[in-house]
Amino acid sequence: MSVSSEFEAANKQYAATFDKGSLPLPPGRKVAVVACMDARLDPAKALGLSEGDAHVIRNAGGRTIEALRSVVISQQLLGTREIAIVHHTDCGMLTFSDEHLRAKIRADLGEDADHISFLPFGDLEKSVLDDIQTLKKSPLVLDVPITGYIYDVKTGYINRVKG
Amino acid sequence: MSVSSEFEAANKQYAATFDKGSLPLPPGRKVAVVACMDARLDPAKALGLSEGDAHVIRNAGGRTIEALRSVVISQQLLGTREIAIVHHTDCGMLTFSDEHLRAKIRADLGEDADHISFLPFGDLEKSVLDDIQTLKKSPLVLDVPITGYIYDVKTGYINRVKG
Repeated sequence: MSVSSEFEAANKQYAATFDKGSLPLPPGRKVAVVACMDARLDPAKALGLSEGDAHVIRNAGGRTIEALRSVVISQQLLGTREIAIVHHTDCGMLTFSDEHLRAKIRADLGEDADHISFLPFGDLEKSVLDDIQTLKKSPLVLDVPITGYIYDVKTGYINRVKG
Repeated sequence: MSVSSEFEAANKQYAATFDKGSLPLPPGRKVAVVACMDARLDPAKALGLSEGDAHVIRNAGGRTIEALRSVVISQQLLGTREIAIVHHTDCGMLTFSDEHLRAKIRADLGEDADHISFLPFGDLEKSVLDDIQTLKKSPLVLDVPITGYIYDVKTGYINRVKG
């Protein structure tokens, strides 16, 4: 069975008891979360989010430079006024360099990916602080509270990164 | 209380009974989900995902062109071999144009955002089909099953979009 068939079966169960059909479009708690795509991190469970609470933006590494378009839409059109960034321990982004991944793509796919920065990082705390600064320095992002965390995949705890 | 304080309190409860500390980095179900950041959509709940199952990439609209970096990392470094795209009814991306948002930013922030495409769309089914094609046509994305869905925010059901 493909995963999509499993998704469809699981969704039938979810929708059968669904009672959130009248939630408004703007996030109720006026917050946007920028988190890594990592499979072990469930931002809703880890941060106590229910449907309707928060925008959740996710990408490889939880990099805010790539999340900028979404953050601007979240603030300008949907009224969020706080941002939380969640990176995590044992992140795949700590394990490679642009050069390494580009070489793998050249070898395996025969394609050139030199035009893409894959945004890996070598230091987890620094990646969070850098990503806070990326948002703080953008003239397109409102001056709102921005908190950065490292999620520990072994314990489930988030630890705040202090700049 | 700021939302970040609420997140920290909720996380203490989550971590107190956390039992997923030994999950491997690569997603167990070898799938990457690309979904909208919308607050009303909880991809894990709606698709039956547990911690460790899947990469979840999210942005405004669930646009795959912006998810490309993450998808390549997901496939090349972490072994995913299937993709599911989830857009949804009542999406904010249906409500504005680049010109409209750029004008709002100019008026409210005094900034020029003409260099950013905010990737809005006018037709929901077409947005899903376009985003499937974006991945299928990219030479950097493997030839894997890609399924596109529209999540109904009123009912909780996902409906498969057939090309």
